[in-house]
Amino acid sequence: MSGERLERGRALLAQLDPGNEDMLRQAFEGVAPDMLGYVLEYPFGDVYSRPGLDLRSRLLVTLSAVATLGYAQPQLKAHIRNALNIGITREEIAEVFIQLSVYAGFPAALNALASAKEVFRQMDGL
Amino acid sequence: MSGERLERGRALLAQLDPGNEDMLRQAFEGVAPDMLGYVLEYPFGDVYSRPGLDLRSRLLVTLSAVATLGYAQPQLKAHIRNALNIGITREEIAEVFIQLSVYAGFPAALNALASAKEVFRQMDGL
Amino acid sequence: MSGERLERGRALLAQLDPGNEDMLRQAFEGVAPDMLGYVLEYPFGDVYSRPGLDLRSRLLVTLSAVATLGYAQPQLKAHIRNALNIGITREEIAEVFIQLSVYAGFPAALNALASAKEVFRQMDGL
Amino acid sequence: MSGERLERGRALLAQLDPGNEDMLRQAFEGVAPDMLGYVLEYPFGDVYSRPGLDLRSRLLVTLSAVATLGYAQPQLKAHIRNALNIGITREEIAEVFIQLSVYAGFPAALNALASAKEVFRQMDGL
Amino acid sequence: MSGERLERGRALLAQLDPGNEDMLRQAFEGVAPDMLGYVLEYPFGDVYSRPGLDLRSRLLVTLSAVATLGYAQPQLKAHIRNALNIGITREEIAEVFIQLSVYAGFPAALNALASAKEVFRQMDGL
Amino acid sequence: MSGERLERGRALLAQLDPGNEDMLRQAFEGVAPDMLGYVLEYPFGDVYSRPGLDLRSRLLVTLSAVATLGYAQPQLKAHIRNALNIGITREEIAEVFIQLSVYAGFPAALNALASAKEVFRQMDGL
Repeated sequence: MSGERLERGRALLAQLDPGNEDMLRQAFEGVAPDMLGYVLEYPFGDVYSRPGLDLRSRLLVTLSAVATLGYAQPQLKAHIRNALNIGITREEIAEVFIQLSVYAGFPAALNALASAKEVFRQMDGL
Repeated sequence: MSGERLERGRALLAQLDPGNEDMLRQAFEGVAPDMLGYVLEYPFGDVYSRPGLDLRSRLLVTLSAVATLGYAQPQLKAHIRNALNIGITREEIAEVFIQLSVYAGFPAALNALASAKEVFRQMDGL
Repeated sequence: MSGERLERGRALLAQLDPGNEDMLRQAFEGVAPDMLGYVLEYPFGDVYSRPGLDLRSRLLVTLSAVATLGYAQPQLKAHIRNALNIGITREEIAEVFIQLSVYAGFPAALNALASAKEVFRQMDGL
Repeated sequence: MSGERLERGRALLAQLDPGNEDMLRQAFEGVAPDMLGYVLEYPFGDVYSRPGLDLRSRLLVTLSAVATLGYAQPQLKAHIRNALNIGITREEIAEVFIQLSVYAGFPAALNALASAKEVFRQMDGL
Repeated sequence: MSGERLERGRALLAQLDPGNEDMLRQAFEGVAPDMLGYVLEYPFGDVYSRPGLDLRSRLLVTLSAVATLGYAQPQLKAHIRNALNIGITREEIAEVFIQLSVYAGFPAALNALASAKEVFRQMDGL
Repeated sequence: MSGERLERGRALLAQLDPGNEDMLRQAFEGVAPDMLGYVLEYPFGDVYSRPGLDLRSRLLVTLSAVATLGYAQPQLKAHIRNALNIGITREEIAEVFIQLSVYAGFPAALNALASAKEVFRQMDGL
């Protein structure tokens, strides 16, 4: 696994959360190891690295999309950690999910807030 | 129809797009006229008006959520117009939808880009 | 095409709207003619005909589910007509969709209200 | 937290299940405490309290919508308890979910039936 | 419970996985026992048994649809076992889910791959 | 726009339908021209080109996923044309969508069959 896109994605993912790549590697091990390369290359190497939108905005877009899906709580928790790591505050993350009650409905908003609470508590060592 | 929440929502909606309230009033006329008050009060009077997240961020969250739903192109077009009206650029809107190819899949992204293109062309008088 | 389930479904569908079966037959013609039998048999012959829930309640359940999907406006319009035909009022149908703003989000509710408005206008000869 | 809408919502939620408000308060604690007010005010104070549709019908609409989303099992279980508390029978709840196999598909129906079974067993002390 | 459709569905389900019917019977017990008959009759007795598409193709279609829903991991795991039992390889199953990153988005693909990994490990006695 | 992935994707897309690339180029023109490269590279250059699953199976997976989304009829029509072009028959395509009534529900199946019918009629010059 090498190449410019992959290295750019790897660097960006490490900036968001140094443990992300290993977590993904373990998840794909034994089922779809090539998927790690695709995740590093397309979402992070290609899309997130585009200059037209700042990283903070991209994280807000991701939190909103993944919470709207409703079923993607494991991925949402990783993105919540990433958002916190680049300086988006807990209050702002909660605001995103409160706002989703309007567009995705209250159940999706409540599920997302439950995931946020779980991440916050883990970070507080609770 | 009156009250503090309603007036706050009405003012905010007018800031986003002066024609919004009339468009909504006509849509609900003859089927659910009370819905106009709820839209002004809860999404705009309560949620959008909260201080914890800036308006630009709230619009990005909305664009992402509504495009992820996939089926809400009429509402998405209104939000694209609102986003442009508060200074989010066409390029940034396109970036939001390109990024959604990762989380909501390429069909949702393509539908959203088609809606954006339609709004851009209407604004250009095409 | 015959059998007890089919005849029971056919009778129930005719009770909801005499034009329904022909509309479905034309829709499936040239692509999946067997589908007509399945629609008559499973949803209407098996499920709707079960004694455990009254027909009015079943229609409310259907309106809510189909509107929540968000993308099924052609089917939703047929179910709105069916609901009106068995005595559910326009006001009650609007209430169902207003309530869905809570669970499915405002865009799904607005799409459903637009479909209801279209059906109401057709029935009024507008 | 006060106001007419909030008190109306609080009273209605208590009628559905006296433990609901505390469960919501704890869920939002430490992440989005203001959300409790919004849940009491908009879904329950505004929407559920509207006169145009009886409470039994509103619960059926909610069960159908939340089960159709597919991912909202924690919320669905709360609504199943609420439905039982106002006299909707276990058999009727099961009928709602059997019917959803038609509109939301069998997997959503099976997930909803599994949640119903879990609630029924908890109520039986199993 | 008897009839031609039911027996055809029962035989097909047993071919996919001999334990399937008992698992479904237990799931529906105490909540919706009639649902077992519907699952045997409509999906398996009617649809899967149709001659127009081979069983391998039907399983691929099912894996793709159920993984795209995103929330149906318990059902997805059963279908993964069924697919393996009729000779679809682990590598092919992984390919299906990698491909879904394009259409359903990366979170749905990652959830499906996690379910596949869990099934593979159970089959390996891990 | 160049590179090995892009050329591989371009060749594969041309094999599916020679008009596809131009249709996509026009769709993205004036809104997100870079998206053409991503579509050629990731779905077609990376994923579809993987050796682990034959092209026929990949098309079935795509038809199933895109129809399950429910809202992606423009994309679904393109994939139906692609499927026909590589030798999947009209009958097989109809079977895929009949089967989706089980997993995605009847409304999604009916929408997909309507799209198939429209493509078939266009091909017949009707």
